[in-house]
Amino acid sequence: MTKTVADYIRTIPDFPHEGIMFRDVTTLFGDAEGFKLAIDLLVEAFRGTRIDKVAGLEARGFILGGAVAHHLDVGFVAVRKKGKLPGNTIAEDYDLEYGTATMEIHEDAIEPGERVLIVDDLVATGGTAAASIRLIERLGGEVVHAAFVIDLPDLGGARVIENLGVPILSLCAFEGA
Amino acid sequence: MTKTVADYIRTIPDFPHEGIMFRDVTTLFGDAEGFKLAIDLLVEAFRGTRIDKVAGLEARGFILGGAVAHHLDVGFVAVRKKGKLPGNTIAEDYDLEYGTATMEIHEDAIEPGERVLIVDDLVATGGTAAASIRLIERLGGEVVHAAFVIDLPDLGGARVIENLGVPILSLCAFEGA
Repeated sequence: MTKTVADYIRTIPDFPHEGIMFRDVTTLFGDAEGFKLAIDLLVEAFRGTRIDKVAGLEARGFILGGAVAHHLDVGFVAVRKKGKLPGNTIAEDYDLEYGTATMEIHEDAIEPGERVLIVDDLVATGGTAAASIRLIERLGGEVVHAAFVIDLPDLGGARVIENLGVPILSLCAFEGA
Repeated sequence: MTKTVADYIRTIPDFPHEGIMFRDVTTLFGDAEGFKLAIDLLVEAFRGTRIDKVAGLEARGFILGGAVAHHLDVGFVAVRKKGKLPGNTIAEDYDLEYGTATMEIHEDAIEPGERVLIVDDLVATGGTAAASIRLIERLGGEVVHAAFVIDLPDLGGARVIENLGVPILSLCAFEGA
């Protein structure tokens, strides 16, 4: 039987802390057929859409985003955690379970009017993706879609992103995060 | 005139601290033609070599490594900073200017006998790459090559890696790091 993307994903209980069922994409990425399947599905979904840049979210979004950008023949932009980008940046905070964190983007990473595809491995609460959308929009870019390997629908992130006017694609979903 | 890989790279003085001329690949990655050039050169260099896995070093090596792995039709393995990988890991320390840091790999990420290509954006002192080579070899893998966009020859990292028996490819070099 043909394997689906979800079949390659490993679940690790109690990471990063007790009670979390961590959906681990490293087993998907490490398998030649699994990785090819995921990238090909992402690329095919956007083949007919005008996209100028792919924005990958640190860090697992870099693995997917680099491959997708290259296949779509566009540039890759890194949305990074605070303090990692060497040039002039703008920043957006987002809420964590306890406290806040900050995502940054180079202020010259996106030209006004550019159409951007956001790529990450997983959407949970949508906080990182929402901060990334705000960053790209502040630079004048338009986020035309956000694409994920995994959606955790019980955490509501897809709705958060769609409420910002950005449609989302996820290759699979796991209930009960 | 045709642009080379080096032409797309921006230099940022005094990052992450005074006196460092930081070679910034984000301007290469963000340019559709520059990113395509870099990935295509890396892929073409290894098209005729038997490679089973591409190992990308956190974090910029993920951007390159994902694209290269997908093009070579092999799996991608993440070599990460301490505490980021959810499964059982092995670890290797390496020296920084002040103190040490640690790289980790999932203990099931490489099968014994697998031939691995290491990919990162830049080789400076070679500490991260050397730690990654030791990790892969401890799992029974063979590092057949290490590939970088940038070499900083004055810091001697290429020699460190070659002394471990691993040939290196770099797409460009900057003197006087």
